[in-house]
Amino acid sequence: MSEAAILSLEEARSLVLDALAACGAAAGTAASVARALVAAGADGQVGHGLSRVPSYAAQLRAGKVDGRAVPSVERVAPAVLRVDAGFGFAFPAFDRVIEDLPSIARETGIALAAIVRSHHFGQAGAHCERLAEQGLVALVFGNTPKAIAPWGGRAPLLGTNPIAFAAPMAVGAPPLVIDLALSRVARGKILAAEKAGKSIPEGWALDKDGNPTGDSRAALAGTMVPIGEAKGAALALMVEVMSAALVGAHFGFEASSFLNADGPPPDVGQTVIAIDAAAVSGGAFAERMATLAAAFAAEPGVRLPGSRRLQARAEAARDGLSVPAPLLAEIKALAGKD
Amino acid sequence: MSEAAILSLEEARSLVLDALAACGAAAGTAASVARALVAAGADGQVGHGLSRVPSYAAQLRAGKVDGRAVPSVERVAPAVLRVDAGFGFAFPAFDRVIEDLPSIARETGIALAAIVRSHHFGQAGAHCERLAEQGLVALVFGNTPKAIAPWGGRAPLLGTNPIAFAAPMAVGAPPLVIDLALSRVARGKILAAEKAGKSIPEGWALDKDGNPTGDSRAALAGTMVPIGEAKGAALALMVEVMSAALVGAHFGFEASSFLNADGPPPDVGQTVIAIDAAAVSGGAFAERMATLAAAFAAEPGVRLPGSRRLQARAEAARDGLSVPAPLLAEIKALAGKD
Repeated sequence: MSEAAILSLEEARSLVLDALAACGAAAGTAASVARALVAAGADGQVGHGLSRVPSYAAQLRAGKVDGRAVPSVERVAPAVLRVDAGFGFAFPAFDRVIEDLPSIARETGIALAAIVRSHHFGQAGAHCERLAEQGLVALVFGNTPKAIAPWGGRAPLLGTNPIAFAAPMAVGAPPLVIDLALSRVARGKILAAEKAGKSIPEGWALDKDGNPTGDSRAALAGTMVPIGEAKGAALALMVEVMSAALVGAHFGFEASSFLNADGPPPDVGQTVIAIDAAAVSGGAFAERMATLAAAFAAEPGVRLPGSRRLQARAEAARDGLSVPAPLLAEIKALAGKD
Repeated sequence: MSEAAILSLEEARSLVLDALAACGAAAGTAASVARALVAAGADGQVGHGLSRVPSYAAQLRAGKVDGRAVPSVERVAPAVLRVDAGFGFAFPAFDRVIEDLPSIARETGIALAAIVRSHHFGQAGAHCERLAEQGLVALVFGNTPKAIAPWGGRAPLLGTNPIAFAAPMAVGAPPLVIDLALSRVARGKILAAEKAGKSIPEGWALDKDGNPTGDSRAALAGTMVPIGEAKGAALALMVEVMSAALVGAHFGFEASSFLNADGPPPDVGQTVIAIDAAAVSGGAFAERMATLAAAFAAEPGVRLPGSRRLQARAEAARDGLSVPAPLLAEIKALAGKD
């Protein structure tokens, strides 16, 4: 392990903001992205945290991400918003959704936001959580560049395609948050193994001929294994339709990488659904969630999903964020603070 | 294998209708249920097909299912219907949803139906498919009696909880349909093994102490293994919230069996979401789905999910439905035709 520095969350946000602004992001955009990346890092989602800053910066400089884009919102149907991220970062578009969608959902009972011309949307569950904090049940679907083969095939067509979900719990308690990609493990784990020249456990990935492989390089040239075999591949396809076809965005097999400055913008899409649970349930929702929480609490060894994330968040708020020294140096250099 | 008889689909529908009507179902209800069970059988979903008739009949006779219930529909918000199945079968309630929800979805862009006081909803994908045939993207979530343990636990709290999805493809082509339960295998496979006194492969189920088991009886006393380990258990929890908490219905751990006449009605719930994809996508949806279909068609060995189901359906329409002789005798006896 290389050394790490500890930054307070405020220090981390400020540094990331400066780095992105120095690379061409508007101040408001840089603040939105910095908030999301630091929150993901604090939640223990390091793959969606500060590790993204160097590649975001490179994409800003290359114009693959438009740091000056301002999301525009159009209400195309009584319960539907189309949000054009304008080939900018996804986070400012999500900020608009989280601002504008709740009042529509409370008016119509269910509402949908389609985010187009979008980019990497980070910790998917965090967007749902912000809607659940406003009393709504929320679903988010987003696609990613190709990594998973359709069942029976060998070439990657589908992204790892997160599904995220959140629901309000009792007043004062944090929402239930479910957030999962449809690959068995995150692709970042294979990238890290390849960088370190290490092998990977079998069952994570297949080589380009569709055979199981422990070779991280062969895995990157092949495909990620979906959860649940054919079922996970089918769910990844569902997410492609829900987030790309439904909004008019690129499929995983058309999208450029989120990780480097090569090629045109990825042009992926995201779909957010918000539901007024109190209205739909005829007022039963709060009692039902209390009953569910009690049933989970009564089972030895069982916790609601997201408990580890909340613990990491509390620790980070108290102790700060650990940032590997080389990454910190890189971000400081981008910010002109080395 | 025991012998089987071949019935035309019309003969099968008529016989099932008669059996259910003889056990107390209203004619319209019996017709709705018969249509759904025969369609599932024709699609090769035998676990949701005619094999259900004896247990449905027993539940009618015991009053666990109200064969005279008439679903009532209330529009509780501009984009939300609450459909009260009245402790009757689920299928007449779904018929109402499929009749009433499309015009709302076309008006508001997205619409939701919450089905309460419901029962076994059979082949989940079939409901979505009927909405996709009307040009809508559809999602259905439904919970089932407890079978899966929350991750880290040993006792079943969650149902196997199907997720179904459908989307219109090119004009004239059948919709894309995705339909999957969140257990690795259907519980019916374990029931069948137990009935035959056979063992089951490891990986299907856990015993009551949470250990892998090949003993079908121990498996039935334990839990089903979810797809994707913690991820599948989290998805099963998501479906409990989406279909039970959101509509004000019983959770899997509260619901009585779908398979016997014991206890009160299961009182489970279902949620249907219908989306006007043309409106949401700004008109891009049809082109996007054509691009997706072409990409799948170009990959050796790859077919869109549901191809096997469509093939089974075509064969059943041409050749009829194969019904095991003992089951046919039982249904005929129920119908008073032995």
